[in-house]
Amino acid sequence: MTIAVVGAGALGLYYGALLQRAGSNVRFLLRRDYEAIAAHGLQVYSTGGDFHLPTVSGARTPEEIGPVDLVLVGLKTFANDRFAELITPLLHGTTVILTLQNGLGNEEALAELFGADRVMGGVAYLCANRGEPGCVRHLGKGRVLLGEYGSSDTTRPERIAELFRAAGIDCRAVNDLSRARWEKLVWNIPFNGLSALTRCPVDRLLATEEGRTLVREIMLEVIAAANAQQLSRPIPDTYADDMLRFSASMGPYRPSMLIDREEGRPLELASIFDRPIERGRQRGVPMPRTAMLATCLHLMTGQAPQDA
Amino acid sequence: MTIAVVGAGALGLYYGALLQRAGSNVRFLLRRDYEAIAAHGLQVYSTGGDFHLPTVSGARTPEEIGPVDLVLVGLKTFANDRFAELITPLLHGTTVILTLQNGLGNEEALAELFGADRVMGGVAYLCANRGEPGCVRHLGKGRVLLGEYGSSDTTRPERIAELFRAAGIDCRAVNDLSRARWEKLVWNIPFNGLSALTRCPVDRLLATEEGRTLVREIMLEVIAAANAQQLSRPIPDTYADDMLRFSASMGPYRPSMLIDREEGRPLELASIFDRPIERGRQRGVPMPRTAMLATCLHLMTGQAPQDA
Repeated sequence: MTIAVVGAGALGLYYGALLQRAGSNVRFLLRRDYEAIAAHGLQVYSTGGDFHLPTVSGARTPEEIGPVDLVLVGLKTFANDRFAELITPLLHGTTVILTLQNGLGNEEALAELFGADRVMGGVAYLCANRGEPGCVRHLGKGRVLLGEYGSSDTTRPERIAELFRAAGIDCRAVNDLSRARWEKLVWNIPFNGLSALTRCPVDRLLATEEGRTLVREIMLEVIAAANAQQLSRPIPDTYADDMLRFSASMGPYRPSMLIDREEGRPLELASIFDRPIERGRQRGVPMPRTAMLATCLHLMTGQAPQDA
Repeated sequence: MTIAVVGAGALGLYYGALLQRAGSNVRFLLRRDYEAIAAHGLQVYSTGGDFHLPTVSGARTPEEIGPVDLVLVGLKTFANDRFAELITPLLHGTTVILTLQNGLGNEEALAELFGADRVMGGVAYLCANRGEPGCVRHLGKGRVLLGEYGSSDTTRPERIAELFRAAGIDCRAVNDLSRARWEKLVWNIPFNGLSALTRCPVDRLLATEEGRTLVREIMLEVIAAANAQQLSRPIPDTYADDMLRFSASMGPYRPSMLIDREEGRPLELASIFDRPIERGRQRGVPMPRTAMLATCLHLMTGQAPQDA
């Protein structure tokens, strides 16, 4: 199977490397890491075992890659306006596009451009970051939930999940992609937002009673909005407590939005904040703390709120 | 009249300079500006006319100043734990202590140390900042509202107000100091808090509909908490709109808490956030947005919330 990785940040490099190691023909669309990878290949430091890929197919343009069977989209969502330019050259008649991006609206944007039947979505729980050029550091976890977006072929998620599992990735297919996305938002909205706003890693957000209380209140707003979206089954409020317990073990983990801020990138506000808030509003679920957090992030960054 | 200025930031330097120019014997407790002022006096740049005081009585310790008739307290409130050390040497039997500091709890702390009957409070609406050492810049406004805290001498605020007016300061005595303090908090809580958190000056906070809405919602929370404090008359909700209109004319004004953050000082969170929130809570008035803003500021600074 030929696979193109578009958006070769930590997530794209790590999963792409695992898929190549397992035998797939993987081609990476690169920018920052192009020269280092061309010269030295790709080095993966992982809690599951380090490895090195001496020969990696990197390209600077999608035209150099050409049509593939599967496009893995790991772009930061603030770059979604480049979908047409970056993905069109990668498509043949039956290419599947799998977005592993954060938040809401990514499948919809891909479907509008390329047709819904090509599009799948996935939710990645991955602690990884890019190291020096040519390296990626996997700090733990790595579960992926895959779901169908627009095809009536209900076996497709399971086939792709099997490909991922064969590469050593903890992966399973789910029948309700929307629910999986909202579940991840229960974590992403408070932790990404508050860490980017206050520059606190996860342990400092949870070090005080008032910090824990605020995180939990925001989680409950997200759960309430999620449960108004006709999910296959509701997310229980106890999920907030499960996530808090899980997060307490993460130590000084820096959520991706904090890293984006520290490295001077735009923040993924449209997909992680604006669209979820708008979906809640459409169903009559107010999210006052989430909305205040979004407003503060808009003010801090100068990024305007996006229409959903 | 002999006056000591303790906390010679922009406010202390500016009002002290005006009082000296009008004939009072003013002594400044200085730190950063000591050498510049000893060498060159004090330069005031003001929208009301620049002036220079060639000879200014500056001291590095309160013992050098000794007992005075009036102590003007302009310290940042995070330094209130230094009251005993800084003010005790300035007192004779009838010395009046007037705090022009921000927020709640300052009169109480002074009364506990020095006796309530000495203590008066004032609320200053002043746009000023320190320039290079030995200079202060007055950018406009400068109204002071003075009120009695602990004395039964109801004529005292008017006498001090007359002293200020004779120095060219727009000043009047009020019979409800608590109400004046809460009125100022209606401005201080949203603008100081949001500007310090997001690094936006006033005009950027008000540049978007969502920013204006958030500021107004926080103002209404403060008004509700204020009106639960047995004020002489309630603060109407329309006061929020008056303040928004007034603030829209301030341009890129940087509230003091933003300047404190940019200059690496602690923030005045206990007096401007923690105590007002606690006073609201005691009277059954929840302030959810104000409390969330306070939590974000505690997280950002690592300053713990203070007991009220």
